[in-house]
Amino acid sequence: MGQFKLHPQLAQDCEAVLDWPLCKLLLMNNAQVLWLILVPRVEGVEELHDLTRGQQHQLWQEVEMLGSYLSQTYAPHKLNLAAIGNKVRQLHMHLVVRQEDDACWPEPVWGNLTPSPYNEAEKMALVSRLRADLH
Amino acid sequence: MGQFKLHPQLAQDCEAVLDWPLCKLLLMNNAQVLWLILVPRVEGVEELHDLTRGQQHQLWQEVEMLGSYLSQTYAPHKLNLAAIGNKVRQLHMHLVVRQEDDACWPEPVWGNLTPSPYNEAEKMALVSRLRADLH
Repeated sequence: MGQFKLHPQLAQDCEAVLDWPLCKLLLMNNAQVLWLILVPRVEGVEELHDLTRGQQHQLWQEVEMLGSYLSQTYAPHKLNLAAIGNKVRQLHMHLVVRQEDDACWPEPVWGNLTPSPYNEAEKMALVSRLRADLH
Repeated sequence: MGQFKLHPQLAQDCEAVLDWPLCKLLLMNNAQVLWLILVPRVEGVEELHDLTRGQQHQLWQEVEMLGSYLSQTYAPHKLNLAAIGNKVRQLHMHLVVRQEDDACWPEPVWGNLTPSPYNEAEKMALVSRLRADLH
């Protein structure tokens, strides 16, 4: 198994926030919802069971850590969690802050949001905040 | 917190398979994909962090156990995992066996599948198989 390389689609759609022990944390560049993605930095992994048990345990810890942070900071009406990967096979876990007045409530975000990138200043302010809070 | 009661929408849409230590395992009554749901049997829980750390750990164990079983038995092209809950707030975790020739590949199942219940014999045969394999 070679060195980890982020899937080009994720690299294109997202801004890198920081690296946790297992995962790379990404911000989806869509200003309509706060949408974060955890990608285990292990090459060739598509399904949960492709990770070792230790890595799975670490992934859940990072999911719980991020979920708690998002809940406390953004008080979502509902937090959405998913690993789908039908189009981008590299294992990645979505955590999406949903509010009742967001762009596609109550539908899931996948397939139901138009592209709507942050402006650069807004994006960098958000990334800085996330880095400060989650380092 | 009162006694656990399955959300009426889940009770209506699904067939109960069995109870694991934490979760009730349900079969979604849609014959187009094999779609299972784990519901922690804890009343009033909507988000992962509403569970104790011990319950969260147990949930991940049950998710991993079910995911491994589905992968080995059905060889999905991709396994989809999600906790959404925008409409049915009771915490429930979807595990969906996806194949490249299924009814809505590569879109997610949520919002993209028409109702298509199993016939009764087919459903009971599947539930029996799941019970035998997963008890």
